[in-house]
Amino acid sequence: MSRVWNFSAGPAALPLPVLERAQRELLDWEGSGASVMEQSHRGKRFIAMAAQVEADLRELMGIPADCAVLFEQGGATQHFAQIPMNLAGEGDSADYIVTGHWSEKAASEGAPYVRVNVAASSKTENYLRMPARDTWKLDPAAAYVHLATNETIHGVEFQDIPDVGDVPLVADMSSDILSGPIDVSRFGLIYAGAQKNIGPSGLVLIIVRRDLLQRAVRPMARIFRYAEHAANDSMLNTPNTWGWYLAGLTFQWLKEQGGLAAMDALNRQKAALLYSTIDGSGGFYRNPIDPSVRSRMNVPFTLHDSALDAAFLKESEAAGLLALKGHKALGGMRASLYNAVPLEAVQALVAFMHDFTNRHG
Amino acid sequence: MSRVWNFSAGPAALPLPVLERAQRELLDWEGSGASVMEQSHRGKRFIAMAAQVEADLRELMGIPADCAVLFEQGGATQHFAQIPMNLAGEGDSADYIVTGHWSEKAASEGAPYVRVNVAASSKTENYLRMPARDTWKLDPAAAYVHLATNETIHGVEFQDIPDVGDVPLVADMSSDILSGPIDVSRFGLIYAGAQKNIGPSGLVLIIVRRDLLQRAVRPMARIFRYAEHAANDSMLNTPNTWGWYLAGLTFQWLKEQGGLAAMDALNRQKAALLYSTIDGSGGFYRNPIDPSVRSRMNVPFTLHDSALDAAFLKESEAAGLLALKGHKALGGMRASLYNAVPLEAVQALVAFMHDFTNRHG
Repeated sequence: MSRVWNFSAGPAALPLPVLERAQRELLDWEGSGASVMEQSHRGKRFIAMAAQVEADLRELMGIPADCAVLFEQGGATQHFAQIPMNLAGEGDSADYIVTGHWSEKAASEGAPYVRVNVAASSKTENYLRMPARDTWKLDPAAAYVHLATNETIHGVEFQDIPDVGDVPLVADMSSDILSGPIDVSRFGLIYAGAQKNIGPSGLVLIIVRRDLLQRAVRPMARIFRYAEHAANDSMLNTPNTWGWYLAGLTFQWLKEQGGLAAMDALNRQKAALLYSTIDGSGGFYRNPIDPSVRSRMNVPFTLHDSALDAAFLKESEAAGLLALKGHKALGGMRASLYNAVPLEAVQALVAFMHDFTNRHG
Repeated sequence: MSRVWNFSAGPAALPLPVLERAQRELLDWEGSGASVMEQSHRGKRFIAMAAQVEADLRELMGIPADCAVLFEQGGATQHFAQIPMNLAGEGDSADYIVTGHWSEKAASEGAPYVRVNVAASSKTENYLRMPARDTWKLDPAAAYVHLATNETIHGVEFQDIPDVGDVPLVADMSSDILSGPIDVSRFGLIYAGAQKNIGPSGLVLIIVRRDLLQRAVRPMARIFRYAEHAANDSMLNTPNTWGWYLAGLTFQWLKEQGGLAAMDALNRQKAALLYSTIDGSGGFYRNPIDPSVRSRMNVPFTLHDSALDAAFLKESEAAGLLALKGHKALGGMRASLYNAVPLEAVQALVAFMHDFTNRHG
């Protein structure tokens, strides 16, 4: 067994101690004589674990008591639809801030359920920068304002929480949740697919102000109502128990690392190392994003000659650097530097990049 | 580590060889240097695995080529809603055969999306038998006929596939899929939550005739359309990769056991052993279900004196027999005898039951 450095955009690297613990207790969890996957979610052991996972997350993120925490399924994509189903009434409109592939998709998947107002967009600028704050056309009567704090494909990230007045702010944080401290009280709803900074795929975390749960008045099955999930502690039906368990191990690991302030410092150090290598390469590597909004989590970059792409990918994989191929929408490379990617991984990557430049420059 | 015999109704026991293999390769899957949970679902390795999993399932179940196989999320409960969203047009009605808790819930969760016609129900008989076939009020114009082949809580199971004419038959097989051979060509859509006979929770298997996928004409987000999932090989968004992988290990294990005919014989043997113990106990244990429709998978039973329930549960757990507590709707006990529960487990259970009778009879 030789583990590699994994830069996958998601499903992404998990902390090695988390995997090792999951491996140890895979056949016998908490002395029950069965795997955590083989436990009834209605059993005492699982319910106690689930409560502890939520408590750990509340402590890590400082989640206010007036927010419910839900462990859901369907990926963020399903919740692009379920959020307007729950937060908008018939005829309501919502403001969408479009800063890349995912926030654009949130708007299009939400459109069957709410009148979508694209209040700001950087699409015509190829998402290379954020739309200037003074150009946002926010509607004070909107049901909510939606944005993605970090764009996994385009590599742009909000560096602050925009002021949207009294309208609830809804944020897709799939690719930067838990990467640093954030003021949860500024949001009406935060959601995140687990497969980047939380755990395995198939789990979605939702943090939502309880007063907003009363808005879901249109006819729909109970299973789509966040209020029902909140009232049933995310066990309205059988949850993804393995995902919930691994999320819990990840939260414990984050606490052991010093919490989100420590992760923030480390993530900034990792990103700075990679961006400085790109910017200092004399044009051999390029990242076109406005430096003031570059993502700490996802770093897309191109080689000065795309004919070298195949060699870069082949040689990097041989050097134990996995999943550096860029998204097809942008081409080139992408390195995702989530919490579970250690500084050593980024050091290995930049060493390889220097070496590659020397051999092919 | 000492494994127990696990009679959980779900999430349920998994085959020990499946767990052992998952444990072995948890940190390094297929020599990739990363866990299967850390692989991009768009990567070559995962796509090849996913295709093999589908091929193995098609072979095991004899799935016709005109059916799509989908690996979805949300539990069967979400698909109680999504099925009418996809298979019924505005104003359509559908026939529901109600034979227990779950088929009743399928009807109520479907009601926001289709006019529900309860064509037959055994509710007034406490679900102790199946509604007589000649009393079913099927509508030839129905969009589909829905039933649950096995009722996990009430312990009744269809012993054949009802003839519903040309109307597509939709079956929730969550708790008896893969327990024996079935003629898939008789169904329009089969669905099953994974957490009983397939794998861990958080995965739903759907087998659907491709021609039915064209029915979804009402406005809805792409993520709810089965046709989109089929066109994208269940990777419209990030799937539950761990669940998919474990389902594949389970399918391989089933093939090694001799396939579904072998499982059928074994499951009949297990169920016969437990039912004969109950019926031969002189009334100490009781199962009230019409013997002609008793479930091979879920065996609810009561003790002649419910004051003994607590002792039965405590002593059985001490004897290494897990999760025998009955569902709160029925009380008493329930033993679930899914594929992963070996004959030795049922032998241990009936030995305990005899012993308990001797001590408390």
